[in-house]
Amino acid sequence: MSVSGFDFSPLSPVPGIRLGTAFADIKGKNPDKKSRDDMAVMAFDEGASVAGVFTQNAFCAAPVEICRRHLGENIRAFVINAGNANACTGEAGLSDAEQSCEYLATSLGISAQSVMPFSTGVIGVPLPMPRLLDGIQGCVDNLDEQHWEQAAHAIMTTDTRPKGHSVQFVHEGEAVIVTGIAKGSGMIKPNMATMLAYVGTNAKVATPILQALLVECTEKSFNRITVDGDTSTNDSCMLVATGKTSLPEIQEASGDLYEKLKTAVFEVLLHSAQSIVADGEGATKFLSVLVQEGESTQECLRVAYAVAQSPLIKTALFASDPNWGRIVAAIGYAGVKGLDANAVRVYLGMGIVSDVVKGASASAVNIANEVLIVEQGGCAKGYREEVGQRIFDHEFITLRIALGRGQKSETVWTTDLSHEYVKINAEYRT
Amino acid sequence: MSVSGFDFSPLSPVPGIRLGTAFADIKGKNPDKKSRDDMAVMAFDEGASVAGVFTQNAFCAAPVEICRRHLGENIRAFVINAGNANACTGEAGLSDAEQSCEYLATSLGISAQSVMPFSTGVIGVPLPMPRLLDGIQGCVDNLDEQHWEQAAHAIMTTDTRPKGHSVQFVHEGEAVIVTGIAKGSGMIKPNMATMLAYVGTNAKVATPILQALLVECTEKSFNRITVDGDTSTNDSCMLVATGKTSLPEIQEASGDLYEKLKTAVFEVLLHSAQSIVADGEGATKFLSVLVQEGESTQECLRVAYAVAQSPLIKTALFASDPNWGRIVAAIGYAGVKGLDANAVRVYLGMGIVSDVVKGASASAVNIANEVLIVEQGGCAKGYREEVGQRIFDHEFITLRIALGRGQKSETVWTTDLSHEYVKINAEYRT
Repeated sequence: MSVSGFDFSPLSPVPGIRLGTAFADIKGKNPDKKSRDDMAVMAFDEGASVAGVFTQNAFCAAPVEICRRHLGENIRAFVINAGNANACTGEAGLSDAEQSCEYLATSLGISAQSVMPFSTGVIGVPLPMPRLLDGIQGCVDNLDEQHWEQAAHAIMTTDTRPKGHSVQFVHEGEAVIVTGIAKGSGMIKPNMATMLAYVGTNAKVATPILQALLVECTEKSFNRITVDGDTSTNDSCMLVATGKTSLPEIQEASGDLYEKLKTAVFEVLLHSAQSIVADGEGATKFLSVLVQEGESTQECLRVAYAVAQSPLIKTALFASDPNWGRIVAAIGYAGVKGLDANAVRVYLGMGIVSDVVKGASASAVNIANEVLIVEQGGCAKGYREEVGQRIFDHEFITLRIALGRGQKSETVWTTDLSHEYVKINAEYRT
Repeated sequence: MSVSGFDFSPLSPVPGIRLGTAFADIKGKNPDKKSRDDMAVMAFDEGASVAGVFTQNAFCAAPVEICRRHLGENIRAFVINAGNANACTGEAGLSDAEQSCEYLATSLGISAQSVMPFSTGVIGVPLPMPRLLDGIQGCVDNLDEQHWEQAAHAIMTTDTRPKGHSVQFVHEGEAVIVTGIAKGSGMIKPNMATMLAYVGTNAKVATPILQALLVECTEKSFNRITVDGDTSTNDSCMLVATGKTSLPEIQEASGDLYEKLKTAVFEVLLHSAQSIVADGEGATKFLSVLVQEGESTQECLRVAYAVAQSPLIKTALFASDPNWGRIVAAIGYAGVKGLDANAVRVYLGMGIVSDVVKGASASAVNIANEVLIVEQGGCAKGYREEVGQRIFDHEFITLRIALGRGQKSETVWTTDLSHEYVKINAEYRT
């Protein structure tokens, strides 16, 4: 079960990036090889620049540690496996991750430091190295610029569908492509599922600029479905720029080309982040929480997360019950000092709040069929429950909370909490 | 469904406190009067001192506002209704709460400022005043020192059973009684259900000392099943001292009698808090999370709440799946700066960590059949999943997390997350 939409549209190849996949039976449950691929390799032509952001979790996984060591080298390839996170596996886990890099490096004729490893799946179980190394070879054997879609499938774990998005724009007559794939679900508190994302572009970008661009774009996409610091052991988001156009290298975080590229990368990342929400475990509803009129970004996020993570609101959402009492209770305990309850207004609407992508100001956000449900510390005059009920029956719901104390605004995205969420997470692994 | 234990033992009357209950059909769904009582009145003899702690929620309910105004007056009575929280009801809600006080005051021949009102139930619906006032009269008509148990029943909402506890001790040949009742469930994040608690004692205590004692005792009981500031609109915890012994008045926060009384009040409050956890919505397991060796109380609580509120850990608990990977992930994202993952140890055991009541040091806490499951950043050597599985099959489970960086420790209590939780909260009100 998952929310509809966020279709997997055709993914444009990115010159200079080849992808290969294989079935390696990482979980060790399908020796008959009838299962879908569970490994992917991405290989980059010489000269690509690579940026990455990783989990802040104190128990970060072995591959994340190796990635951090290698980032800054002349990165030429990624090796990715699903089914096993290689997390909390101690020294042996580090050694396994290094061995994967060495094996792929030898196969591609590059150095081990040029390879970054990624793993996602169950925590605390050693990688099945012989099968994994066979899998790497299988991936290398079918490297191809056309294999983005296969790779999107191969990195899935509890995902019910692959996630990917492509954007193109033209600059001085040259087509610039941005294509990305991602995996992740488990969305009651989004941080708890591993999220992996790989985005490629044929633009040419100096590494420090690419890194700054990625940090800025993840901040308002992946980090808006995740509480600061609340990350899984393996979360990683990578951006690769192959430089396969005749356009000049972007060496500064400004200018027309830079802004266009940033918008395109942002759109791909936001689409990925929202796709992950929509594929939340057992999700039946998609909720955008837009908090406006805050004194600070931080207090907007506090309120947005208090609402987006309230199990009582999420179960009410599942039940299509517009229980505004639970919403004001969550706003009230979000910890905003000196909040005047009488100044707060809450609006219910339909659709997805995504306009931040286009840089629209909060006031310009346009939400369909919006209705005021809370004002003056209580139920809004003229609000009738049937109206809220009709909105809550929809799949895509917006909650706009105006705090009445400032100019800042922030948006986060989440889902409902269904019977099926409990079922999936109670049965996973056992 | 709820965790076993926390029996409702006989509640000793407290000289100087009379209780009365009535069915007032607050929800308006049972005009045939066949339902259980949903109102209670508590009346105190002249000379009682009263202390109270209330929700920090910015959207606090009307009765809480009136309580805050009246606290400090010569309090002589409480009026309590279940089924309707009188929260987010604006000016009309305040006026309704005041009218309740006036009605009870007239009936008892005291001033309206001497009455404190309490409500719990659905948010945002006006109180049914005519039925409520009739109910007050019904309560007054059967005021009796023996009616603690009836009152414990009358204040229930989604509770599956009444909650109460009595403790006695002897000081200089005089029996000092501490008796309390409480209501609350909805425990995925305990803050979200309204918790009400009423504790009485026949000791004589100066009001400022009584208030300090209550604040200290709630801090390590009710506030250890609740995140700071994360409170419902109506949470209230009251302590009444009638002074009906020949012992001298306690005028300082020290001395043998003060310490004995504090221990007794603490035990009653902790029992109430744990009873509320055990009666969590759809709860099948009771989890004590003890975090030791922290640098500060704050970081111990951060880790304890990260674990206790993780939906992934709570669903694993429901499934009796000792998924230690989810536990270390939660410790890792709790936001403890500079945490050395290799220094952390996690132990699984059986029972309830309650020894804090008796003031025992963390190292003295004794947990049955404890097993080390995590060390050196991964699965502990020699740990076998069958052993963890056997522990997780139990109803009362302890998780002891040693951070390896200091001397502080804290304990919080929670439950699992079951199918039934979603069912109850999706269907409540609709």
